[in-house]
Amino acid sequence: MNEDVEKKALEYHSGEKPGKIEVMPTKPLESVDDLSLAYTPGVAAPVKEISGEKWKAYRYTNKGNLVAVVSNGSAVLGVGNVGAEASKPVMEGKAMLFKAFADIDAFDIELSDEEPDKFIATVQSLSPTFGGINLEDIKAPECFYIEEKLRRLLDIPVLHDDQHGTAVVISAALMNACKIKEKKLERIKAVISGAGAAGLSTARMLSQIGVPKENIIMVDSKGVINKLRKDLNSVKQEFATDIPAATLAEAMINADVFIGVSKGNVLKEHDLEVMADNPIIFALANPVPEISYGRAVHTRPDAIIATGRTDLPNQINNAIVFPYLFRGALDTLATTINSAMLQAAANAVARIAQEPVPECIEKRYGCRLTFGKDYLLPKMGDIRLLAEVSSAVAQAAMESGVARRRIVSFIEYRDTLLARVEKSSLFCHGSLRHHSKIRNHSGEESRLHKI
Amino acid sequence: MNEDVEKKALEYHSGEKPGKIEVMPTKPLESVDDLSLAYTPGVAAPVKEISGEKWKAYRYTNKGNLVAVVSNGSAVLGVGNVGAEASKPVMEGKAMLFKAFADIDAFDIELSDEEPDKFIATVQSLSPTFGGINLEDIKAPECFYIEEKLRRLLDIPVLHDDQHGTAVVISAALMNACKIKEKKLERIKAVISGAGAAGLSTARMLSQIGVPKENIIMVDSKGVINKLRKDLNSVKQEFATDIPAATLAEAMINADVFIGVSKGNVLKEHDLEVMADNPIIFALANPVPEISYGRAVHTRPDAIIATGRTDLPNQINNAIVFPYLFRGALDTLATTINSAMLQAAANAVARIAQEPVPECIEKRYGCRLTFGKDYLLPKMGDIRLLAEVSSAVAQAAMESGVARRRIVSFIEYRDTLLARVEKSSLFCHGSLRHHSKIRNHSGEESRLHKI
Repeated sequence: MNEDVEKKALEYHSGEKPGKIEVMPTKPLESVDDLSLAYTPGVAAPVKEISGEKWKAYRYTNKGNLVAVVSNGSAVLGVGNVGAEASKPVMEGKAMLFKAFADIDAFDIELSDEEPDKFIATVQSLSPTFGGINLEDIKAPECFYIEEKLRRLLDIPVLHDDQHGTAVVISAALMNACKIKEKKLERIKAVISGAGAAGLSTARMLSQIGVPKENIIMVDSKGVINKLRKDLNSVKQEFATDIPAATLAEAMINADVFIGVSKGNVLKEHDLEVMADNPIIFALANPVPEISYGRAVHTRPDAIIATGRTDLPNQINNAIVFPYLFRGALDTLATTINSAMLQAAANAVARIAQEPVPECIEKRYGCRLTFGKDYLLPKMGDIRLLAEVSSAVAQAAMESGVARRRIVSFIEYRDTLLARVEKSSLFCHGSLRHHSKIRNHSGEESRLHKI
Repeated sequence: MNEDVEKKALEYHSGEKPGKIEVMPTKPLESVDDLSLAYTPGVAAPVKEISGEKWKAYRYTNKGNLVAVVSNGSAVLGVGNVGAEASKPVMEGKAMLFKAFADIDAFDIELSDEEPDKFIATVQSLSPTFGGINLEDIKAPECFYIEEKLRRLLDIPVLHDDQHGTAVVISAALMNACKIKEKKLERIKAVISGAGAAGLSTARMLSQIGVPKENIIMVDSKGVINKLRKDLNSVKQEFATDIPAATLAEAMINADVFIGVSKGNVLKEHDLEVMADNPIIFALANPVPEISYGRAVHTRPDAIIATGRTDLPNQINNAIVFPYLFRGALDTLATTINSAMLQAAANAVARIAQEPVPECIEKRYGCRLTFGKDYLLPKMGDIRLLAEVSSAVAQAAMESGVARRRIVSFIEYRDTLLARVEKSSLFCHGSLRHHSKIRNHSGEESRLHKI
């Protein structure tokens, strides 16, 4: 990040009203009558209803549209273990995006818990408040244990976005890159550099979407994760390879795909030179990629290259996924976000990128965007993501049996979604509405069940 | 509550957007540049700043204006132990009032923790997120232990509103009632019915504002709390009396003041008949007072009578206190809300009631309001509360040495406060601004220190 952006960012976050979010009433509070409905004595009525039947919290409170963005700041992207307070700007930022992109209300919650069981106990305690839990920036391997245990304990969706949001967006990008380069997922050889939350979860998802497990080589700071190593935790063991390669450089020989979620500058030109023809190179370390975009393009003009940076083509960013994963999960009262929902999201994201891009998106980004090597993924805030990804996730929740509410008409559901953000007028364009409508491929006609 | 209000209240809380609050961005999010400041890569700048110096969370996040309204729903006023989910409408309601009355952002947090140490651990864990903690609707005697321990553990203000908010508003009302009836606090005999959070905390505060401890008789469901009883917890022992009275009826003989924070209909006409001349009767049980307003007026036409009900004169309601206690505490970065601040709040509230009432308040409530037996306290949402109570609390924080930021000009501070809610236009009137200005009694001229 250059000094100018840094200065602007500090100004943006401070000012008369520091921070990025606030809490607003949604119901009128203008008269004495309003007060007596919102507070005393009126409030006793919904209290009694919910105390009789807990699910009515979805009917009389904001629970059903409220997500906790929870972190202990132990692994903030590109900055490391900074602690609770310092992670707050990131979590507030996520809350902003939840609202702007998917009309989801999110509370940022920064916890001082470093110890995993303590963290789990705290999140379990506060879970009655929320309709979903978005875990964020928690270091590996603790993050796996924390997410797994919370998923078992809670009946609301729990998602560690650094794992699954990242895996979904990488998978979508990879599917599209393979389509462009005419590679088959079943035949590619993939090297993943980085065996933290994102790396391991991406490896799992790649094997779910068709990449053979034996074709995936994971590399961590000590080299290739192979079966000879004695220092592997159980999650890493899952992806220990038989292939006789010890270093990243050796692993790269004939690789079709490189996915870097590790550290800046771990790749050399030579590592790219030995890759297969038409390689796919996702160098996602932030802010400094595993190899600079310029050097990658220069070394492998036949490659498709993506990074985590906003200022380059093909930014791989969870923000085109997490708001919609939760939108679909909340709207179906899903008990969890399972792999069927994640895969449905990846497919929907990939599909949107293949379609013509609405003019206003091109205007916003100041360039022509056509599906191809420099446009693998939809742009952040593309309103089609809201309609299509949320719907795909909701449908997958219903089909995989984790939905507690059915969406009967996806036509109506899409309209409801678009109306939500049109009202908010944040980074979204009403003019995009018809784009979503014409993409509708569901025929049902009845109504969205209301709780 | 009659059926009509109940039905309206349920409608008010449900609808297309269930609940009463939402989370909104406060910074622009309209362009690609905005996104890169709010999220990646810009967000790394404030993260790094705060990881270097934690206090900068007050500069770059909403921490300094953010209060957690935390409950486990174990003692919801008038409904009892309803659990976390069912307490949510109350906590959301408080969040609404925080915003409307004092421009404070509040997250409602409902915890499943019944066990006090577990509750404490959870609140401690999430405290880095917030600038203050408002505990709410937690049953006695656990609430005393929880608040005391959290106050010791945390360096941000912790306030159990059912204890202190209630005590402050009752104290203010009592001071004004004594003024009207020409009774001296030093000479009144007071009976407090109810030895839960509100009762015990009120007893403490009365003794702080000048009522001799030996003149306070507390009564719980088993009768007078006297030194002969063997069943008292340590908090109740503090107010065990030597007076030879065993029952509420005996305690009432010659009492100047009755304060009921107990149960409906525990008082009989006879109990009022035996009180001293010009008695002060606060029958605050909700929704059914300790004696009905009508019977009290009929039995003691010489009395001043207050209740907890919105539909009667002299409603005693914490909402004229808690938003401003936190406003003053947050603005001075106070480490706690101490008894000096509580007393300052009580004095300021009492003083405002003695002043002429702005016309728009009378309009809103549809009646003439003049200081006297039927108008002891300012009305909810009176904007003078924001200016005067917050200032008094802030000043007390500074004078008692718990402020970490000085307000140098209270003239400017009041203007800032009024500007805050004028913008929000919630239940507040710009036209009231001059009322506060003329009440300004501070001479300083320099600026509010900004962090």
